[in-house]
Amino acid sequence: MAKNLTTRSEDYSKWYNELVIKADLAENSGVRGCMVIKPYGFAIWERMQAELDRMFKETGHQNAYFPLFIPKSYFSKEASHVDGFAKECAVVTHYRLKNDENGGIVVDEDAKLEEELIVRPTSETIIWDTYRKWIQSYRDLPLLINQWANVVRWEMRTRLFLRTAEFLWQEGHTAHATEKEALAEAEQMINVYADFAENFMAVPVIKGFKTESERFAGALETYCIEALMQDGKALQAGTSHFLGQNFAKAFDVKFATKEGKQEHVWATSWGVSTRLMGALIMTHSDDNGLVLPPNLAPDQVVIVPIYRSDEQFEAVSEVAKRLVTELRSKGVRVKFDNRDTHKPGWKFNEYELKGVPVRIAIGPKDVEKGTVEIARRDTLSKEFIDMSSVSEKVIALLDEIQTNLYTKASNFRKENITSVESYDEFKKVLEDKGGFISAHWDGTPETEERIKKETKATIRCIPLDAVEELGACVVTGKPSQKRVLFAKAY
Amino acid sequence: MAKNLTTRSEDYSKWYNELVIKADLAENSGVRGCMVIKPYGFAIWERMQAELDRMFKETGHQNAYFPLFIPKSYFSKEASHVDGFAKECAVVTHYRLKNDENGGIVVDEDAKLEEELIVRPTSETIIWDTYRKWIQSYRDLPLLINQWANVVRWEMRTRLFLRTAEFLWQEGHTAHATEKEALAEAEQMINVYADFAENFMAVPVIKGFKTESERFAGALETYCIEALMQDGKALQAGTSHFLGQNFAKAFDVKFATKEGKQEHVWATSWGVSTRLMGALIMTHSDDNGLVLPPNLAPDQVVIVPIYRSDEQFEAVSEVAKRLVTELRSKGVRVKFDNRDTHKPGWKFNEYELKGVPVRIAIGPKDVEKGTVEIARRDTLSKEFIDMSSVSEKVIALLDEIQTNLYTKASNFRKENITSVESYDEFKKVLEDKGGFISAHWDGTPETEERIKKETKATIRCIPLDAVEELGACVVTGKPSQKRVLFAKAY
Repeated sequence: MAKNLTTRSEDYSKWYNELVIKADLAENSGVRGCMVIKPYGFAIWERMQAELDRMFKETGHQNAYFPLFIPKSYFSKEASHVDGFAKECAVVTHYRLKNDENGGIVVDEDAKLEEELIVRPTSETIIWDTYRKWIQSYRDLPLLINQWANVVRWEMRTRLFLRTAEFLWQEGHTAHATEKEALAEAEQMINVYADFAENFMAVPVIKGFKTESERFAGALETYCIEALMQDGKALQAGTSHFLGQNFAKAFDVKFATKEGKQEHVWATSWGVSTRLMGALIMTHSDDNGLVLPPNLAPDQVVIVPIYRSDEQFEAVSEVAKRLVTELRSKGVRVKFDNRDTHKPGWKFNEYELKGVPVRIAIGPKDVEKGTVEIARRDTLSKEFIDMSSVSEKVIALLDEIQTNLYTKASNFRKENITSVESYDEFKKVLEDKGGFISAHWDGTPETEERIKKETKATIRCIPLDAVEELGACVVTGKPSQKRVLFAKAY
Repeated sequence: MAKNLTTRSEDYSKWYNELVIKADLAENSGVRGCMVIKPYGFAIWERMQAELDRMFKETGHQNAYFPLFIPKSYFSKEASHVDGFAKECAVVTHYRLKNDENGGIVVDEDAKLEEELIVRPTSETIIWDTYRKWIQSYRDLPLLINQWANVVRWEMRTRLFLRTAEFLWQEGHTAHATEKEALAEAEQMINVYADFAENFMAVPVIKGFKTESERFAGALETYCIEALMQDGKALQAGTSHFLGQNFAKAFDVKFATKEGKQEHVWATSWGVSTRLMGALIMTHSDDNGLVLPPNLAPDQVVIVPIYRSDEQFEAVSEVAKRLVTELRSKGVRVKFDNRDTHKPGWKFNEYELKGVPVRIAIGPKDVEKGTVEIARRDTLSKEFIDMSSVSEKVIALLDEIQTNLYTKASNFRKENITSVESYDEFKKVLEDKGGFISAHWDGTPETEERIKKETKATIRCIPLDAVEELGACVVTGKPSQKRVLFAKAY
């Protein structure tokens, strides 16, 4: 354990917390529940953002920006929404501080806001208040907007990336002329998220619907993608909501149809957040540290020079620099770590901890023989290869690592979806093995609540591809038409 | 006045406000002082962000993210900083709402924060509180970090982009081992900003120092870039601060030197904001609407088809689509507006209002003759050219427009810098003509304050390239060694 990292089997939760800190991804700040995203962690998030942004634009969406603050009264307009979001939130009540008689600074009670402002926990209300002005006619539809923003939810128990008071996310908010179009949009976006998670993050996900009690506050239908972490707990990685006409009615957003009738528009919203960083870390990493899929790695390749003299350094550097140029010209993100303040062993350790997919070491003997040593982070295997074939090899390897990570995570998930036929079996599997449990459920919130209370497992989703299968609810024995997926979850 | 736009000569301020709304750049929200940045405006801001981000990374900076909230006590640690920033601000005092007996929602007095949180007006304090943990040794320096974020300053009078309660910006925060390095960094970044403003935005700027009374609260030296708007008022477009050891001392950030001594680090901070959008609009636009430099235009070229029958539309579309493919392959951002809901005249108007640099119109006669009509937005001139030379012509034209806008703005500024030798002349020029006034000043804050009070002109900067020139202060007659630039400013 060169990294002094707690192992996953010792204490998975501690392993995660330590890894986030030691790999320089994020840390807690002096502000309760708010994190600092460190440069290395932020560089990964930037790569996620860039790819998602590209995918959103390719599907016709545009970015915009709406206010951070939401007047308290806006929340009251959509009844279920206020219960879901406006309760645990940051409330701005004053707009000025002043010096007190002791030289300290205090809130100026003369500067009290007439109406309190809520720091946005999500932006449906402020955005729909705006859409009323933007939408008059069918010609203004569909309106396909996304926002990259920070949001605040006053969580009591926080964990870096997984649950923080402030987090970064994107929120799409779209308006459509028909119910059908809005449903198609909500489904399209959950497919975009699944595509991103699987092909870019190498994180396999299950697409499904949330049950009524797990839906977004204000939604008629919530699509989600659910991933499985190495400790057998599920993580909701993204959601896309069909909001019906709820917000259009609450904010009076109507449009003139082609026939000249006034109708309320249909809405969706969808989002993913810095929580994805948690999913990424917990899906691939191991006891040696972070493991990054090449698509997301800020540095895909690091070159470490090995030398004892200045002359050796010169010779090794020359080769390394040639490689850097060659790899960069082929679009590979490569770093040559020529710092003389750290030894090669220290660097090996560091890049293993930080999950750099490919490490190339070059020493004086390599220069002589025309070889380099290539190590891959996912399997920790090494080999010597001919210098002339490095870039070809590296490009193939990056592809292979990306695929391997996905396959590995897929196999793990496959092994950890268990079908059960009774409540006893349900509880036993949950206890012994965890993972997703595929079971029949009678469709009532009461049974769902009972299972949650007794086992801490929730219904993660009703899979989109669930097949008709007659069965009996594992708890009540009442008839059921398809299996749903249960798990303990982050 | 096809756009119903107030002209600049009628009412410059009204022209600006109308233009921002009509060109779909931004609008006021339901939240006092907070704007909504609309998709078209945001697309321009995204282009600014992308280019600045590239420039920051090229000069060795990394992005990170720090909390939105700052505990009140943090502000008290740097005395001048608290006066400058912590007074007019959004204060979070509670973290929960609850239902009252009438079914309304009210602040829950049981959920009062022990210490109030300030929504960041700028992040020096929270960042330096973090740097204490990140910096131990000279090996950790320089620390070169940038953050893209939203900030809030409770401005009483707001104007879209120019002064809003919430705005978007980037803030760089760097830490260095020596005073010299920190000064070099502050100067480097003002050069980056000037380079960006001139070569990307086509906005000529003057680089200078702020006087002591105009400095950033907590800075020892503030570098700035100042631009001149068409109404003769100046606009501060970016600042870069040398903070000395003020924040390092306030937050106890020390490092071990190579020799093993403990020393406080040296700091800079620097920022530009969505205010740049205001500078962009007011530098180039005219009575017909927005004028965008090709570098920043979301669409550099728009193609408008002209037709009366479906057959004509087919023929014209075929040519247009070929052009789109050809131009895109050469990296030109081009849009083919084939909507049948709007007439060509309406579209011409729309794209003029939105400042698209080049418009191409193609009608049935053009298809016959093998020509197209090309119009440029900056000069409003049109010409017919041969279809085979379109892409060559467009690429040359985009370059020419970018250069022309800069030259035009430069000439305007040259004509509007006036050297004066007496206070009477100063006041006369300010009244009759505006612009920058180059004058001798005795270097005292008292004289600076008097001029500001009597004329509303402030010292915009002491130009970096000011030459030694003995003279007498226009107000007090006391000796002065160089001229400084005065102007009324946004």
